[in-house]
Amino acid sequence: MSGCIFILNGPNLNLLGQREPAIYGHETLTDVERACAAVAGQAGAEVRLFQSNHEGEIVEQIHLAREQAAGIVINPAAFTHTSVAILDALNAYDGPVIEVHISNVHKRESFRHHSYVSLRADAVIAGCGVQGYELAVARLLRLID
Amino acid sequence: MSGCIFILNGPNLNLLGQREPAIYGHETLTDVERACAAVAGQAGAEVRLFQSNHEGEIVEQIHLAREQAAGIVINPAAFTHTSVAILDALNAYDGPVIEVHISNVHKRESFRHHSYVSLRADAVIAGCGVQGYELAVARLLRLID
Amino acid sequence: MSGCIFILNGPNLNLLGQREPAIYGHETLTDVERACAAVAGQAGAEVRLFQSNHEGEIVEQIHLAREQAAGIVINPAAFTHTSVAILDALNAYDGPVIEVHISNVHKRESFRHHSYVSLRADAVIAGCGVQGYELAVARLLRLID
Amino acid sequence: MSGCIFILNGPNLNLLGQREPAIYGHETLTDVERACAAVAGQAGAEVRLFQSNHEGEIVEQIHLAREQAAGIVINPAAFTHTSVAILDALNAYDGPVIEVHISNVHKRESFRHHSYVSLRADAVIAGCGVQGYELAVARLLRLID
Amino acid sequence: MSGCIFILNGPNLNLLGQREPAIYGHETLTDVERACAAVAGQAGAEVRLFQSNHEGEIVEQIHLAREQAAGIVINPAAFTHTSVAILDALNAYDGPVIEVHISNVHKRESFRHHSYVSLRADAVIAGCGVQGYELAVARLLRLID
Amino acid sequence: MSGCIFILNGPNLNLLGQREPAIYGHETLTDVERACAAVAGQAGAEVRLFQSNHEGEIVEQIHLAREQAAGIVINPAAFTHTSVAILDALNAYDGPVIEVHISNVHKRESFRHHSYVSLRADAVIAGCGVQGYELAVARLLRLID
Amino acid sequence: MSGCIFILNGPNLNLLGQREPAIYGHETLTDVERACAAVAGQAGAEVRLFQSNHEGEIVEQIHLAREQAAGIVINPAAFTHTSVAILDALNAYDGPVIEVHISNVHKRESFRHHSYVSLRADAVIAGCGVQGYELAVARLLRLID
Amino acid sequence: MSGCIFILNGPNLNLLGQREPAIYGHETLTDVERACAAVAGQAGAEVRLFQSNHEGEIVEQIHLAREQAAGIVINPAAFTHTSVAILDALNAYDGPVIEVHISNVHKRESFRHHSYVSLRADAVIAGCGVQGYELAVARLLRLID
Amino acid sequence: MSGCIFILNGPNLNLLGQREPAIYGHETLTDVERACAAVAGQAGAEVRLFQSNHEGEIVEQIHLAREQAAGIVINPAAFTHTSVAILDALNAYDGPVIEVHISNVHKRESFRHHSYVSLRADAVIAGCGVQGYELAVARLLRLID
Amino acid sequence: MSGCIFILNGPNLNLLGQREPAIYGHETLTDVERACAAVAGQAGAEVRLFQSNHEGEIVEQIHLAREQAAGIVINPAAFTHTSVAILDALNAYDGPVIEVHISNVHKRESFRHHSYVSLRADAVIAGCGVQGYELAVARLLRLID
Amino acid sequence: MSGCIFILNGPNLNLLGQREPAIYGHETLTDVERACAAVAGQAGAEVRLFQSNHEGEIVEQIHLAREQAAGIVINPAAFTHTSVAILDALNAYDGPVIEVHISNVHKRESFRHHSYVSLRADAVIAGCGVQGYELAVARLLRLID
Amino acid sequence: MSGCIFILNGPNLNLLGQREPAIYGHETLTDVERACAAVAGQAGAEVRLFQSNHEGEIVEQIHLAREQAAGIVINPAAFTHTSVAILDALNAYDGPVIEVHISNVHKRESFRHHSYVSLRADAVIAGCGVQGYELAVARLLRLID
Repeated sequence: MSGCIFILNGPNLNLLGQREPAIYGHETLTDVERACAAVAGQAGAEVRLFQSNHEGEIVEQIHLAREQAAGIVINPAAFTHTSVAILDALNAYDGPVIEVHISNVHKRESFRHHSYVSLRADAVIAGCGVQGYELAVARLLRLID
Repeated sequence: MSGCIFILNGPNLNLLGQREPAIYGHETLTDVERACAAVAGQAGAEVRLFQSNHEGEIVEQIHLAREQAAGIVINPAAFTHTSVAILDALNAYDGPVIEVHISNVHKRESFRHHSYVSLRADAVIAGCGVQGYELAVARLLRLID
Repeated sequence: MSGCIFILNGPNLNLLGQREPAIYGHETLTDVERACAAVAGQAGAEVRLFQSNHEGEIVEQIHLAREQAAGIVINPAAFTHTSVAILDALNAYDGPVIEVHISNVHKRESFRHHSYVSLRADAVIAGCGVQGYELAVARLLRLID
Repeated sequence: MSGCIFILNGPNLNLLGQREPAIYGHETLTDVERACAAVAGQAGAEVRLFQSNHEGEIVEQIHLAREQAAGIVINPAAFTHTSVAILDALNAYDGPVIEVHISNVHKRESFRHHSYVSLRADAVIAGCGVQGYELAVARLLRLID
Repeated sequence: MSGCIFILNGPNLNLLGQREPAIYGHETLTDVERACAAVAGQAGAEVRLFQSNHEGEIVEQIHLAREQAAGIVINPAAFTHTSVAILDALNAYDGPVIEVHISNVHKRESFRHHSYVSLRADAVIAGCGVQGYELAVARLLRLID
Repeated sequence: MSGCIFILNGPNLNLLGQREPAIYGHETLTDVERACAAVAGQAGAEVRLFQSNHEGEIVEQIHLAREQAAGIVINPAAFTHTSVAILDALNAYDGPVIEVHISNVHKRESFRHHSYVSLRADAVIAGCGVQGYELAVARLLRLID
Repeated sequence: MSGCIFILNGPNLNLLGQREPAIYGHETLTDVERACAAVAGQAGAEVRLFQSNHEGEIVEQIHLAREQAAGIVINPAAFTHTSVAILDALNAYDGPVIEVHISNVHKRESFRHHSYVSLRADAVIAGCGVQGYELAVARLLRLID
Repeated sequence: MSGCIFILNGPNLNLLGQREPAIYGHETLTDVERACAAVAGQAGAEVRLFQSNHEGEIVEQIHLAREQAAGIVINPAAFTHTSVAILDALNAYDGPVIEVHISNVHKRESFRHHSYVSLRADAVIAGCGVQGYELAVARLLRLID
Repeated sequence: MSGCIFILNGPNLNLLGQREPAIYGHETLTDVERACAAVAGQAGAEVRLFQSNHEGEIVEQIHLAREQAAGIVINPAAFTHTSVAILDALNAYDGPVIEVHISNVHKRESFRHHSYVSLRADAVIAGCGVQGYELAVARLLRLID
Repeated sequence: MSGCIFILNGPNLNLLGQREPAIYGHETLTDVERACAAVAGQAGAEVRLFQSNHEGEIVEQIHLAREQAAGIVINPAAFTHTSVAILDALNAYDGPVIEVHISNVHKRESFRHHSYVSLRADAVIAGCGVQGYELAVARLLRLID
Repeated sequence: MSGCIFILNGPNLNLLGQREPAIYGHETLTDVERACAAVAGQAGAEVRLFQSNHEGEIVEQIHLAREQAAGIVINPAAFTHTSVAILDALNAYDGPVIEVHISNVHKRESFRHHSYVSLRADAVIAGCGVQGYELAVARLLRLID
Repeated sequence: MSGCIFILNGPNLNLLGQREPAIYGHETLTDVERACAAVAGQAGAEVRLFQSNHEGEIVEQIHLAREQAAGIVINPAAFTHTSVAILDALNAYDGPVIEVHISNVHKRESFRHHSYVSLRADAVIAGCGVQGYELAVARLLRLID
């Protein structure tokens, strides 16, 4: 297997590890990247982690993925529920897409129960903490094998 | 008639011509700009095309239009359904506004049936492909005549 | 190009030019027909304008179009929001269909936001005044070229 | 006072006096017309009663009223709940309009609780039996005095 | 015919004639009472007008009506839309009930479209101004004849 | 058994056999009438088939049925979902009524899931193709036996 | 056990025994009070029954209960569905609260299915007739034991 | 034609003939089976009738039908409105499926208007009494001919 | 009085006394049965308690009750909100039915606010803990007296 | 500046300072009046505080304000969500109106998110504790300056 | 780590590998069990797979898990959307629960978007095919470490 | 008291003073900043005003506030209704938050009635014009005292 896996992260995830650790744990995005790289490395794949608080930058990373990514793991965070732009960008991407949420969004406020991204994603992993990223990479590896 | 027509384009439209050509055709935004310029030129008007994946940049182009544009043609793309900010910016603009959609959004997913921009736009043209931009310019020309 | 373009008009449009001219302008259906004929004539096409306050007569004109029309421009007026019969008739028609509304229905009462005809129409042009008919013919000409 | 009062009746009202007399009574439309003429006559006005099972014919009577009627009493019957065309025709009429229902529609099935005609009517009289027509004429006489 | 007709009025109607005369006119409740008495007097009946801003007092007047009133005309005003207590009181009353609204509530805010009282009233008269009270008495007289 | 069975058909059914044969088959209304006559004939009954694209004409056929029909089979087509007038006409008819749909409307667009006619019909047969008419006649025969 | 049990009754319950006896029975509030006193007396408790058609008076009785009542049995009648004020008053009361309805409100009109009081009440007893009050007192006695 | 037709019946249908005979008639499931066998026998087919009050057993009968049944007639009774499991089982079955209801469910409580089974069934027959089963078998025979 | 009272319990109630004792208390179904027997015994009646996690078994117990039970107390637990089959079974039962819930379901998640069983039950007792069963038996005894 | 500012308070606010101090604090209405008087006094204005648990009394205070008040500060408490009568009274008042809520109602139960009073109020201040009254007076002073 | 992981499967999953392999793949539940056992075995844990088409049996397995299982992986299949009983059973279980769906239910019919089980599950994994079970076991192992 | 108060402003507020002065007045953000500084200065606090048309920049200012701000005053403008990202950022901020709207959003289009920010804000001040900022600062000062 070759190619790169994009791990895209939406708004406020730069605070991971600092914000509400009781819910989100103490691991940071750097830890996430390292763990995902370890999983991907076993299959000879690489990961590239990106975070932005700007919807437009995430859209543009997905455009970039059209050229460079064998698959996308995306935790859209708040954009999950509000961004048609990200959905449309993903609709223009041909590879596999796995949506990740650190917490189980289905147990939270009702506006978090709807995901525009789920309309395109091949799979959704929610509530597995930061391990969810690793599971998503594991799934992607089997799909792009 | 004098002045300039702004042709504003929302997220993912930079991919026009590459993305799902069965739906969106093979013409690019450059082709759109050229065709619109031809229509406008017949009435001595100019066009200025702008695309952004960032809601804020579109808002700011509309602010700029308050000084510089005789009319606005806008294809808000995904922002059609989610951006109150663009609606508010257009509410602060006095000239005519024509909303364009390349596909007939009314035949697609139900969340695409609602447009914040339509609450302000003078007209809506949907499903005419990229020709829709030309028709919108033709309409604007008559309004700002 | 050969063939005829049907321009179908729903209830109350016989009053066009007399009713609420501030909204609908002073042009009558005869003016509309003349303007459309001019646009179509440039491409060697003809138009046939029909108006009825009876849903059944519009249904039957669409049946006739199955034999005679290269395309349909339809302003269903009030039937837009209430007639499944017209939708079903259009579903039995194979050529292109453009839906026209003189005003921007999306800015009016909420019951005017839903259109049964839009579920079948290839394109929708709303709020361009009677010029909308001309733009619709221009679009049809390119489709049936 | 001069001029004529139109008394328009929607579908199935030709059966008045025969259909479900326990609900609708034994009086017929001819009785209604006679009673209304008596009320109007006291003020020197005339009435003209019309019934149709065809929405288009009612629309066209309202068009006629633009020329001939000092006021309209309308019992739209089933069209109350389904006809935007009649609403639009009434919107193009400048005189006073009184909506009448023989039974109290608010106590019946929920789809009978909504009236398009009420969005335009100056007054609504429901549940007064056929006397409701007389009361409506009495109201009209005061308005067009 | 014998007995008394109760004319019950809900909150803010004590301001009638002073409040928003463009909508509600210049006639006061005293004028209403006089006009209704005139109509009723022709049939040998009497009227008794009551107004309260207190839901409980209206409920109790309806209880009193169980002993004293041959029929009730009620303009519940704001309580129309919010008072189940008045509905229940009317349900415990056996005579005829006519609901009156001075303006056409169906053309106002949507929360004014629902009436608890209509679930019990024999008839509803809305939008006939203060004449509506007279029409209601006329209807009652025929019912309790 | 004596009397006649009315077989009423709503808009666009005159196209039966021509329109979308993959869905509706190749049999025409004439075939339907012949098949129904055969079923009815076994019980000594007659059928009378009627089709109209005009709601008012269907209403009037149902009025006629009050005098002439032992039972009604009705395929209201598009009017199923929009016609309160037909429902009201059927409410004024005393005999048995069977509603037929050629396709299974419950599997189509959601606006086809609601039927005004079902509020009155004794039975509903949907999705049996044109054989549904025969089954409806068979049911009627047992009811009016 | 010591203290007093308040038995609060909402609008129209002063008619108990007179109103619709088929539904509500022939027992009056005096009978209710006597029966409840008998149940309470076995545990050495007292009851105090209060009825009002005025929401404000019920609110004030609940305020009084803060000082004087070991528990509240409340049949809010029509206020069940409309009074946030009573809910708020109960929220400011610390003792146990049992909500009683004579009929099974869940089988009646849909607007009777929602109870503001149930958001605070410890228990709800509906449809047990006036015996429901006795059962409620029996429950209270165990709670405040 | 060969093979067997499964006639599956949901909860409480074991009471057929005993329960509410005014609605459901006096015929029992044994009568239904005999009548269906007669219809099927004319085409050389057999029927197998099954009833259960257990959703799981109906699911398993449908699994069995994958091996043994040329078609399924199913009256899911209460499971119509609540069982996604039966829908999923039917989705895994390739043959024709006819849904039967003895009464016209569309005239009953609103929760009976939705059917999960209709999303899969080829046809729906409601309100034909137990004759509905016979009509369903007649339809199946033509489909599996 | 003679006959037996069925006390039917839905899913998970076999855990009563073990599951979340803070909410449900420490008493088990055996305790419930004993307490109910004591109440019933005072009137010479007997009780029979049944619990099942299987909807079908509860349906069948209700069928059995048609022969054997003078009344039913039922705590449908989770089936309250999802089982039309139990509602239908109860509809086929002629005796009195009392619905019991240990907790006040109206204060819990919104999906617990709707009860199919309440559409049939004569009374509902919620939030009285396991004492609710005793109160229900007391109510039944008066009804079947 | 001259004139008086009315400070109107709805049900249960007489308990302020006693009820749930963790939410509402320890200050009483007397403290509120004193603080408001201090703010108003700096501008030479006076305040008059009124509290009632009776909707009708609040309505009547607003009527009084038509004569006596330069502005109204109103904390409608529970009536916020249920009283159309107070809205109508305020609609008949010409001066400025500021709505105050001690807690942030938007974070509480969903039925507290809707305010009839907000449809008329010039401003809404929620969640500022009892300081909200002072801020409202400060705003009023600037408006009525 | 010690203890056993329960892998519970809802209705129709016994067909896994046979039903719609394009969607669900060719692997059977036996394959699932083997793969899960391999993952669990690495951490010294065991798995126990159970499938049932009967809601009650799944409820009872969850009761059993209270004694025997260190964690639960559950694919409730159709019961996801309809079973409050399973939710309640899981609420009575203290260990970790992972919900698995083979397909991405969020892209399917809207009634599949709601899951009662998600209200309790710690995590949800959807659309990962049968690999989802393995990922769920991997997650459980970390939780129960 | 020490520390800084952040005054964050959403899209289009850079136009304040130019846009629709009839609604928004003639004061600019610079005026707002000066007025707020004056209020804060009295308590020895400082303010820092920020405006952006980019949601991401507002999110990042809130992140900055975690280190630098003693409290936040935020006028999210259009983002009020659409930004979960800002809500999530505020959820990660520990200090007090006051939401300000210049106009009374509750009187405008219904989509402006919902605020994501209100789910987190301690207080909401709407309709006080630019004075609302000053009142918000005054409130913050008391909270962070």
